[in-house]
Amino acid sequence: MMTTLQFSLGQLAERLGATLRGAPETVVRGLASLQDAGPDQLSFLANAQYRKHLAGSRAAAVLLNAADAEGYAGAALIVANPYLAYAQLSHLFDRKPRAAAGVHPTASVAADAQVDASASIGAYAVIESGAQVAAGVTVGAHCVVGARSAIGEGGWLAPRVTLYHDVRIGKRVVIQSGAVIGGEGFGFANEKGVWQKIAQIGGVSIGDDVEIGANTTIDRGALADTLIGNGVKLDNQIMIAHNVQVGDNTAMAGCVGISGSTKIGKNCMIAGGVGMVGHIEVCDGVFVTGMTMVTRSITEPGSYSSGTAMQPAAEWRKSAARIRQLDDMARRLQQLEKQLVAVTSGADTSSDA
Amino acid sequence: MMTTLQFSLGQLAERLGATLRGAPETVVRGLASLQDAGPDQLSFLANAQYRKHLAGSRAAAVLLNAADAEGYAGAALIVANPYLAYAQLSHLFDRKPRAAAGVHPTASVAADAQVDASASIGAYAVIESGAQVAAGVTVGAHCVVGARSAIGEGGWLAPRVTLYHDVRIGKRVVIQSGAVIGGEGFGFANEKGVWQKIAQIGGVSIGDDVEIGANTTIDRGALADTLIGNGVKLDNQIMIAHNVQVGDNTAMAGCVGISGSTKIGKNCMIAGGVGMVGHIEVCDGVFVTGMTMVTRSITEPGSYSSGTAMQPAAEWRKSAARIRQLDDMARRLQQLEKQLVAVTSGADTSSDA
Amino acid sequence: MMTTLQFSLGQLAERLGATLRGAPETVVRGLASLQDAGPDQLSFLANAQYRKHLAGSRAAAVLLNAADAEGYAGAALIVANPYLAYAQLSHLFDRKPRAAAGVHPTASVAADAQVDASASIGAYAVIESGAQVAAGVTVGAHCVVGARSAIGEGGWLAPRVTLYHDVRIGKRVVIQSGAVIGGEGFGFANEKGVWQKIAQIGGVSIGDDVEIGANTTIDRGALADTLIGNGVKLDNQIMIAHNVQVGDNTAMAGCVGISGSTKIGKNCMIAGGVGMVGHIEVCDGVFVTGMTMVTRSITEPGSYSSGTAMQPAAEWRKSAARIRQLDDMARRLQQLEKQLVAVTSGADTSSDA
Repeated sequence: MMTTLQFSLGQLAERLGATLRGAPETVVRGLASLQDAGPDQLSFLANAQYRKHLAGSRAAAVLLNAADAEGYAGAALIVANPYLAYAQLSHLFDRKPRAAAGVHPTASVAADAQVDASASIGAYAVIESGAQVAAGVTVGAHCVVGARSAIGEGGWLAPRVTLYHDVRIGKRVVIQSGAVIGGEGFGFANEKGVWQKIAQIGGVSIGDDVEIGANTTIDRGALADTLIGNGVKLDNQIMIAHNVQVGDNTAMAGCVGISGSTKIGKNCMIAGGVGMVGHIEVCDGVFVTGMTMVTRSITEPGSYSSGTAMQPAAEWRKSAARIRQLDDMARRLQQLEKQLVAVTSGADTSSDA
Repeated sequence: MMTTLQFSLGQLAERLGATLRGAPETVVRGLASLQDAGPDQLSFLANAQYRKHLAGSRAAAVLLNAADAEGYAGAALIVANPYLAYAQLSHLFDRKPRAAAGVHPTASVAADAQVDASASIGAYAVIESGAQVAAGVTVGAHCVVGARSAIGEGGWLAPRVTLYHDVRIGKRVVIQSGAVIGGEGFGFANEKGVWQKIAQIGGVSIGDDVEIGANTTIDRGALADTLIGNGVKLDNQIMIAHNVQVGDNTAMAGCVGISGSTKIGKNCMIAGGVGMVGHIEVCDGVFVTGMTMVTRSITEPGSYSSGTAMQPAAEWRKSAARIRQLDDMARRLQQLEKQLVAVTSGADTSSDA
Repeated sequence: MMTTLQFSLGQLAERLGATLRGAPETVVRGLASLQDAGPDQLSFLANAQYRKHLAGSRAAAVLLNAADAEGYAGAALIVANPYLAYAQLSHLFDRKPRAAAGVHPTASVAADAQVDASASIGAYAVIESGAQVAAGVTVGAHCVVGARSAIGEGGWLAPRVTLYHDVRIGKRVVIQSGAVIGGEGFGFANEKGVWQKIAQIGGVSIGDDVEIGANTTIDRGALADTLIGNGVKLDNQIMIAHNVQVGDNTAMAGCVGISGSTKIGKNCMIAGGVGMVGHIEVCDGVFVTGMTMVTRSITEPGSYSSGTAMQPAAEWRKSAARIRQLDDMARRLQQLEKQLVAVTSGADTSSDA
């Protein structure tokens, strides 16, 4: 059903600039974990907790750093960073279909849209008035590229991505299915209990080399643009509200929610399920652990947390009940401290007597 | 690329019924924040924390209340509620494309569907048997309007909204891309470890002036309808389970999840990431802060919380470890109190002696 | 507008193998809760908290177990498990449109795709090269079935479901609108602060009788497949990362997020908003309560929690402030214990004197 991709160990070593230990003519037909790899698959060791699986691996060869290679008798491609080497080789074995250049006959492209001849526009895609699709871009089936929106060179949109109007996307941006970029943010003015809608007249600007996960939503700005920097990686089901700014090379895992006008620095890592309130600033180099609620600005790089780890439910019920008594406990503790001082003083006094 | 929208200050003052201070012929070509506004943009001051930016603003004029206008030398539109005035003017500067009336040639409309002549049905939209689309409604590209579903006057559906069958939507309802209304709720009966599906035979009824965010899901009822009141505003990625009821003018921020059959009152505000268990009732006028878990009914208006604010991770690890010891700490505290009473009594006794 | 579905009590009793108490010719035109049911609707009592509504119900008849039937004077269908009986009958009253067999003229089906003649392919659906759609499958409007993906007999895909390439789906699988199966997981290797993409070359394998909710995302594997067992039920807006494994008959409520390579056992129940870190194992028969963060493997069946229940905000603010002081409180408590021992010893000493 699939055609077989194959490379020799020698070819792979050359591509990586790796030191090859083993027969260069050995054929590799895929990549797999140390446990799963068969004799025609390449594997890698990038995480110390998997070192125990190295000796028993049936892999054709293993991507190893020099230290790990010393203790391993089998064929190896020796590199400085095995995980990065695996990342590089992984693309050789990707069976993702490559779309042919051209506009699918069922697509609907506005007369004044500019679509480069080398771009691919999928079935039933809609390219609206004034939109621009640059060279080498793939627009998947059922995508909508709104009025005046632009996709830079080499972008890849999975099927069913929506870009509203006035969304500017850099080069080599990957957007997974179901993502919505440029939706109208949550802006309402309350007039005697009734919410009056505020038109969201800003756009979205997305840098180069950004990845946006499935069903992630990035709202357009209320006034100015929502801004996503270069190299930002957003996992699935992330919610980025209007006028958020995300700095270069920041990565967010799934299910993160960022409220309006919050500004996140560069090279941050935001773990899954984190929520941030609006109108705060997070500096560069911050790591926020899973399910944390960020309620104020962060001005120092480092790790931040508030996610509570699971306990057996019976134990947790006791802890949770005590949390509700904490203020009372703190007051009683303070009371005890005072009483003890009194007792001790009293004892001193009596010993003086 | 865009045509320029422009208004004079005099026109804007008249539209708002505002007191104009400055030259009525001054041209305004857009809206911007106090810091960003250029000399052809209007700004506003609605939040005291931005007052510091007022004096230095280059804006053509500023929407101000009377008190703030007193301390400001520049051009101003003086109104009772500057934020509301901004909301009203924002629509003048909205470049969202307006769809032309009529059915796009690529749309698929059932022979017995009723589509008003003033409605707009976008490319590749599907309107199923018995569906009704009222006057002035926009149905975006790739939308599906299921069998017998109805959209009231003036509604606006972004591209790619799915309405299942038997979904009733009021007037002037706005639905963002990726929203799914009427999906089959999570209903299963467990038979010896195997889940048997319960058909979800209710529908969804949505009031007037509702807004539904991108990728939000509202499930159909198991028996009766899921109910969303008038003026309800739902942000992105909200999950409303089967048979939930949401009262008029309640607003929910992103990533909220409401479990089945829960009933929420009117004029509530539910912040981002809140979760509610099923089968509870929340009264009118409740404010739930971010990432709170609502585990029981709320019968008194007011604010409710359980979201834990972030700390530096090293400090949080200590707090979190102590949470697990809380029950033990509470018992030791009680023990100390008893012991201290004993000591004090003993001391009293000895002092008596 | 709708045709009326109707059955006699006698027909329904026969279908269930129930004991009928009442007139077999009574007509039932729908199902409703005890409070809502009218005289032509059937109801059921499955949850003790609704027993109070039994006596006053106007239902044509009620599905009851033998014990509850004793205390009820009205018409009843007596069964061992009323909730299961309701589940079974619910399908009789489901007005979900049944799609006609055949390929809609607007669908785009690759020449080498295999579509069974009894399958239904909806408007604008895209079936890519090498895909297989088995007998009795419904593929809704705007669905995309990627290259080499396969859907087993009797499956039902709502409108707008995306299957990427190499996704294998078992028999009788139901997928709600907006779900994305096989998206590229969040895999990047960090090279001097820049994220390098790792091609996601695994697929997704989904068992028989699985249900997948609206806007849920299941990423393809990085190397091997992401695996969803038989009978698994996933609610809306769930995020399943690459290489997760979910065991048979496990159910997850809305907004759950499971990080990469985590393995969940059989017959687990994961409540709404739960998050799990990656690379852990959860054994069979685990129940995780709402909004819990699962940070380590679970090796014993049972219930696990860390979700914190709401308090009035003023009380919660005190509790939350104390949580940040907990480590200090614990140290002071320990100090007090030591001091009290000293005092008591001192008292003993002095009493000795």
